[in-house]
Amino acid sequence: MKLKEIKGSELDERKFIEEKIKDIQKAAGDGYAITALSGGVDSSVVTLLGYRALGYKLKIYFIDNGLMREGEPARVASIFHKMGINIAIVDAQEVFFRALKGITDPEKKREAITQTFYKNIFADIVRQSGAKCLLQGTILTDIEETVAGVKRQHNVFEQLGINPEKEFGYKIVEPLIQLRKDGVRMVAKELGLPRTIYERMPFPGPALAARVIGEVTPEEIQLVRKATDICEDVLKNTHAFQYLAILHKDRVTGMKDGKRQFGRQIEIRCWESVDAREALPTRLSYEALDLLNRRITREVPEVVSVTYNISSKPPSTIEAI
Amino acid sequence: MKLKEIKGSELDERKFIEEKIKDIQKAAGDGYAITALSGGVDSSVVTLLGYRALGYKLKIYFIDNGLMREGEPARVASIFHKMGINIAIVDAQEVFFRALKGITDPEKKREAITQTFYKNIFADIVRQSGAKCLLQGTILTDIEETVAGVKRQHNVFEQLGINPEKEFGYKIVEPLIQLRKDGVRMVAKELGLPRTIYERMPFPGPALAARVIGEVTPEEIQLVRKATDICEDVLKNTHAFQYLAILHKDRVTGMKDGKRQFGRQIEIRCWESVDAREALPTRLSYEALDLLNRRITREVPEVVSVTYNISSKPPSTIEAI
Repeated sequence: MKLKEIKGSELDERKFIEEKIKDIQKAAGDGYAITALSGGVDSSVVTLLGYRALGYKLKIYFIDNGLMREGEPARVASIFHKMGINIAIVDAQEVFFRALKGITDPEKKREAITQTFYKNIFADIVRQSGAKCLLQGTILTDIEETVAGVKRQHNVFEQLGINPEKEFGYKIVEPLIQLRKDGVRMVAKELGLPRTIYERMPFPGPALAARVIGEVTPEEIQLVRKATDICEDVLKNTHAFQYLAILHKDRVTGMKDGKRQFGRQIEIRCWESVDAREALPTRLSYEALDLLNRRITREVPEVVSVTYNISSKPPSTIEAI
Repeated sequence: MKLKEIKGSELDERKFIEEKIKDIQKAAGDGYAITALSGGVDSSVVTLLGYRALGYKLKIYFIDNGLMREGEPARVASIFHKMGINIAIVDAQEVFFRALKGITDPEKKREAITQTFYKNIFADIVRQSGAKCLLQGTILTDIEETVAGVKRQHNVFEQLGINPEKEFGYKIVEPLIQLRKDGVRMVAKELGLPRTIYERMPFPGPALAARVIGEVTPEEIQLVRKATDICEDVLKNTHAFQYLAILHKDRVTGMKDGKRQFGRQIEIRCWESVDAREALPTRLSYEALDLLNRRITREVPEVVSVTYNISSKPPSTIEAI
């Protein structure tokens, strides 16, 4: 498949939506389609395109892999319920944590999440639903980064020469594959999705597992979830492209209650970027940096030290994993 | 031994110097004394006090443990040669790296360096020199932090109930034990030591080994040595209390020459403090932060990402180890 990029500046949202609705109807035929909603702008747009194309014949699942942010499954379901669209929430936390046990290599972590998602969880759901095809929110940047070997995205089977029909039992339709983030946001707005969705900052496929260096356990996810919550609260008015908290595995010396504590470190990253291909650290005020430090070291007792990323992309990447 | 603090504000430098010269003469008696010079203000003051007290009967050794900063042994020797004082440089790099092999726990690292320094290197030197006593630059803060359990300083045998005469074969004299850093600097100035010594920022006993998280190898010391050199060059005009570069063990994803690199991360810390008991991160300009990032990621190819510490002490400590 040859991919022709559609730039934000040349995108006709209405025409794009009409075409994609037709594409989805054609791919699904008489059968059911299925999609996995994560709450990000990409999967939300695909869900709404699919719903417009197929109505009740689109089955929408939110897989709770235990790696989501605080309150995320309920928040996402509520947004779509308000638009009259029903979401099935599938609790798969145990399955994912079992698959992640003992894995420290970032590539293997991503691979474990991909395999668990498709082979263990989603293939079953598709089989039970009788659906013929899966709608998925892959965008152009995902593919480029995979091909360049930067990281393995979670939804790029075809580009890697894997046949999803043969290996997983269904066909994947990717209506957004010619767009970058800016184009997806324009389509989201046109579709009438709420601002909290189309202005939502990017969040990685492996969710909070991408924010833990080393092995991912429920305890480490809980730590980084608390730090993420604080980070998003403190930085919500910066209008930065993306901000995130990373839990390091390295321990550093600290003092709490006058006692030595060989504790944890949280790294904050906050990025200025247009399309994630290049990025610069936001020049946050020291008042904001100090507030991040004070809230995180107080509200997450295991943490004794907080750092702020000062590297650009490249040579850094936006996420640490 | 009861310790009475002498505050900077109540210190009479001349009287202090006279008294300490007498104390050292009394402790050494007719014999030789010996001291280990690191180039820091504490050991430099002790060396000069000892030299004033004993002249050629003080033997001065600079132990090159392989953990020093770029060009440090030669720089320190040159400063003292200019004052007519001879320093013997002892190359003990291999012994220290052998002792540090496989050790990741920070306490055990400090302990390995202490034991190697006293038992393997210095005890031999003292035995061969026929010296009766060792002059050492312990200050009040070292002891307080050891007693409080924050970290194990490298020169606090007596406070930990270890008898240096019995265990290592000589007596330790600590003329600066009632002072904090500000007092030591006043004495250094009065003694006529150059500004590069008495205004030199604090540097940890375990040297660059305190700046490597995880196992300390010659390769990792070389990485952190290069980053330290850049850090000290970029921040030399800040007049901050202390600035340092830490090599993390955690690897993070980066991109160099368009290729994914699972590389290293350097953390920069820069502190505002009066006496090291409490400290705040310096509010460096983003121009300085950006220069640190660009120089470190360019000049140290293994590094893909640089962070800046935004925590205060407490709950952080000044060093990470």
